[in-house]
Amino acid sequence: MTKEDVAVDRKGKLYGISTGPGDPELVTIKAVKALEACDVIAAPNSGSGEGVALAIVEQYIRDKEVLTCYFSMDRDIEKRKEARLVAAESIIGFLDKGKDVGFVTLGDATTYSTYMYVHEIVAARGYATEIIPGITSFAAAAALFGTALCEGDKTLTIIPARHQENIDELLDYPGDKVIMKSGENLTHVLSKLKERGKGASTLISYRATMDGQQLYTSIEEFEQAPEAGYFTLALVKEEE
Amino acid sequence: MTKEDVAVDRKGKLYGISTGPGDPELVTIKAVKALEACDVIAAPNSGSGEGVALAIVEQYIRDKEVLTCYFSMDRDIEKRKEARLVAAESIIGFLDKGKDVGFVTLGDATTYSTYMYVHEIVAARGYATEIIPGITSFAAAAALFGTALCEGDKTLTIIPARHQENIDELLDYPGDKVIMKSGENLTHVLSKLKERGKGASTLISYRATMDGQQLYTSIEEFEQAPEAGYFTLALVKEEE
Repeated sequence: MTKEDVAVDRKGKLYGISTGPGDPELVTIKAVKALEACDVIAAPNSGSGEGVALAIVEQYIRDKEVLTCYFSMDRDIEKRKEARLVAAESIIGFLDKGKDVGFVTLGDATTYSTYMYVHEIVAARGYATEIIPGITSFAAAAALFGTALCEGDKTLTIIPARHQENIDELLDYPGDKVIMKSGENLTHVLSKLKERGKGASTLISYRATMDGQQLYTSIEEFEQAPEAGYFTLALVKEEE
Repeated sequence: MTKEDVAVDRKGKLYGISTGPGDPELVTIKAVKALEACDVIAAPNSGSGEGVALAIVEQYIRDKEVLTCYFSMDRDIEKRKEARLVAAESIIGFLDKGKDVGFVTLGDATTYSTYMYVHEIVAARGYATEIIPGITSFAAAAALFGTALCEGDKTLTIIPARHQENIDELLDYPGDKVIMKSGENLTHVLSKLKERGKGASTLISYRATMDGQQLYTSIEEFEQAPEAGYFTLALVKEEE
């Protein structure tokens, strides 16, 4: 009788482990301990660069078993839901064997991450879960620029700009703003910011704290040598 | 001739070190290394509980020299500016002696922190500076609740609610919201959320990841045993 065949009384626990923005040193002590303690590491792969979460924490995982979870980026919500369910079922397979699973997720697990969909399915089925928060890409970018992301009594609005139909309204909100996940919409959003006189007060980062990082201190500077992609984000400061 | 009298060619560097929300394990590897490398630790004290930043990282500092920086919370901006200048000057005194100073700041250094004012003064005078980002209180709270702070294409608006005259307008924004720093305004803001039918979909945390932590899964639950103060925040989810 092999170990696998033994009936397991204790179910495993799912840990959502935030890896932070890219620099392996921006991982928390708590995340490192969880990575070391988990039996299996689950890592997202959506084709849009999320495989980087695993690379960030590679040194803390060493030769552990890795379960790759494929997430659909299809516009059809049913296809996306199906992929999340498949990922959750794979994880539950390990939990039922009593193994603790650490799902690594870029940035912060609760901030625009695909992990949360899996988390909700697994938690709803009664398994123990825990989320370890992390540093967001926009906090990392503000730190690199040496600027406040938000200050005093001003609001901060995070805008995922890819599919926003009301982008004009959002850009007219008072307070500081982060524009992220613009995708192909980026040029359009930047032109709207310039129309609003924000060309010189918009900071743009590409791959903040990752290999290939680029920082631009104005839209004009960005346009001279743009690095646009999934990891490009803009910080828009309200005038004093 | 003592060590202090020797002319110093190398100026020290100022590190803005984010301590995260409260749990000492939610400090990053990078922050621990910076704390260990700095000669002097500067810590804010504003009377409103910011002294906690130092307590979070105490185990990483051990017997290093600590410079306490007093920040005025006066409504008079000139008094607040004066206190920031005094703090910056004290730090510069150490930098001029070639000592590296690590200023510890609760949560994330670029997110509503007093540190940034000091940072700007010191950086403007030509000293080397570096900011180490951290985990915010609201990311920590969402993780504790096991809920997404924001998801998909929805905006996330962070609202410091203490002095907001247009709170109605802000609460009517689409997307998910974080209400923080409400102070005495909290009861008023919560009643407005209830008016909007958000009583059951508002999550409230007090001292998330700190000693004395309280989590409430609705406004009604909060009102039965409220813990209100500087560290109380509310997560307001938009309906699907």
